[in-house]
Amino acid sequence: MDDEPRGERSADALAPRARARITASFERQGLMRHLGARLTQVTSGRVHIELPHRPEVTQQHGYFHAGATSTIADSAGGYAALTLFPDDAEVLTVEYKLNLIAPGEGDYLEAVGTVLKSGRTLTVCRLDVFAVHAEQRTIVAAGQQTLIRVPALPAGTG
Amino acid sequence: MDDEPRGERSADALAPRARARITASFERQGLMRHLGARLTQVTSGRVHIELPHRPEVTQQHGYFHAGATSTIADSAGGYAALTLFPDDAEVLTVEYKLNLIAPGEGDYLEAVGTVLKSGRTLTVCRLDVFAVHAEQRTIVAAGQQTLIRVPALPAGTG
Amino acid sequence: MDDEPRGERSADALAPRARARITASFERQGLMRHLGARLTQVTSGRVHIELPHRPEVTQQHGYFHAGATSTIADSAGGYAALTLFPDDAEVLTVEYKLNLIAPGEGDYLEAVGTVLKSGRTLTVCRLDVFAVHAEQRTIVAAGQQTLIRVPALPAGTG
Amino acid sequence: MDDEPRGERSADALAPRARARITASFERQGLMRHLGARLTQVTSGRVHIELPHRPEVTQQHGYFHAGATSTIADSAGGYAALTLFPDDAEVLTVEYKLNLIAPGEGDYLEAVGTVLKSGRTLTVCRLDVFAVHAEQRTIVAAGQQTLIRVPALPAGTG
Repeated sequence: MDDEPRGERSADALAPRARARITASFERQGLMRHLGARLTQVTSGRVHIELPHRPEVTQQHGYFHAGATSTIADSAGGYAALTLFPDDAEVLTVEYKLNLIAPGEGDYLEAVGTVLKSGRTLTVCRLDVFAVHAEQRTIVAAGQQTLIRVPALPAGTG
Repeated sequence: MDDEPRGERSADALAPRARARITASFERQGLMRHLGARLTQVTSGRVHIELPHRPEVTQQHGYFHAGATSTIADSAGGYAALTLFPDDAEVLTVEYKLNLIAPGEGDYLEAVGTVLKSGRTLTVCRLDVFAVHAEQRTIVAAGQQTLIRVPALPAGTG
Repeated sequence: MDDEPRGERSADALAPRARARITASFERQGLMRHLGARLTQVTSGRVHIELPHRPEVTQQHGYFHAGATSTIADSAGGYAALTLFPDDAEVLTVEYKLNLIAPGEGDYLEAVGTVLKSGRTLTVCRLDVFAVHAEQRTIVAAGQQTLIRVPALPAGTG
Repeated sequence: MDDEPRGERSADALAPRARARITASFERQGLMRHLGARLTQVTSGRVHIELPHRPEVTQQHGYFHAGATSTIADSAGGYAALTLFPDDAEVLTVEYKLNLIAPGEGDYLEAVGTVLKSGRTLTVCRLDVFAVHAEQRTIVAAGQQTLIRVPALPAGTG
């Protein structure tokens, strides 16, 4: 159990099997596919998810909907926690809190989940979401998330 | 400014114009339409949104994705706040916190946003999300949200 | 495991031993004593704590300090969770979120912690704090809290 | 309005008058004095508050009470926000969320409030609390806070 952000560790620390497992899980998430989200970085204790702008993910003013912002933030944190778990463990979000700091305006959103503390039962992640427009990156949301480690369901039931 | 939940008030208290305005705003939300969410109740200080189960709103185990749960919870709270605003005001979510209490399993989800406190600048809402399965209603998420009143954008720019 | 607030249950449902245990724990809290807080109601799934106004619990304008408000809210939720635990279990706060809705102004504050969901590992509580002035009760804070059940420390080590 | 943590800026950026103003406000907080908290660092967008261990700030197991941890975290964030305000503005906490990551055990706690985003009306701060024991620093709490800028009360009424 440590108290430092884990994302500083070398990406090599993440076994290819763990990475494959997370990619497979991501691809089973109907909502991620439906929104058009992409898993773009998976390192030990840190995961990035991107969401391109299109009308299907907007609110009434054409900005990214807070729900879309939250969805990729929550998933980025969940998978960041999972990178530090053994193979026979799964993760569930207990709760999260998100501040919507600026309008979600740009070509795509990038959510970054970073493990702050990985305990035996509970994990705490930092959540940051950036809007990227013509190479300019602006923070649009910041939050914190609590997750719980649970035994993985037997294969085939997922 | 009062401290009591406002949803107890008669639905008649909500002018048809306010209701029409909220319905129109909801219909402009690309994400709500994309997910298949429906605005099912709009009364003074309380709004209900339903989301039928389908693969497009699930996570890797086939349950409702926490992101889908959050999306309808956030929108229900936002519109609940808006029911108490004058016509020339709009609402933005400042932040929210949501506990995911039970797996989102059922025929549909129902999110209920209820105004706890409506101030001049800030509004605080309670958020509750239920899963409904064969008439059985189970709470799956509970949270709290802070919103800010902002001047409405001129017509045509929304 | 149920999803309804538990405080509706008869107070008789709480064994005198549980009540004595909570009272003893409260009395060991140096901070509660130092602030002058009092445990005023302990029923199954709901606990009330009161804090009289005095200069020692104020902020720079003479109102109750948000820290004092939070402290009694957190403790009320923790003990509310504990009322539903077996004798050999203890409770720790995982996290909480609190909205400070109105200035903490009055003769005393009353914090009410209510269990929303009591699970095997995690409990979720609603937190409400009222200011009472000349019999008038105003809500000053509302929040939500996550707690974890842990094995009790052996007697004498507490 | 910017999106970067402000604490990186040189401490010199903070006018002595602003620093004096914050120190004076801190000294008027009855609760801070009653707990024995000390304002130890005030720079632009970042404030540190320390709280020495003593029985008056503990819970039933002798650790720092979560309420004490929250109190100094909330104040550190509030004053961090205030460092970026003009002289005629005051700050109120709208809400905060805090994860209690490890038992508050040590010689003293150090809370660090850092401005994440300073807007015209609302400010968002990151909150971190460390326990220090024999030079060892461990994170014990992490959170996020929303604050609102309000007009300062006329002199003499504070």
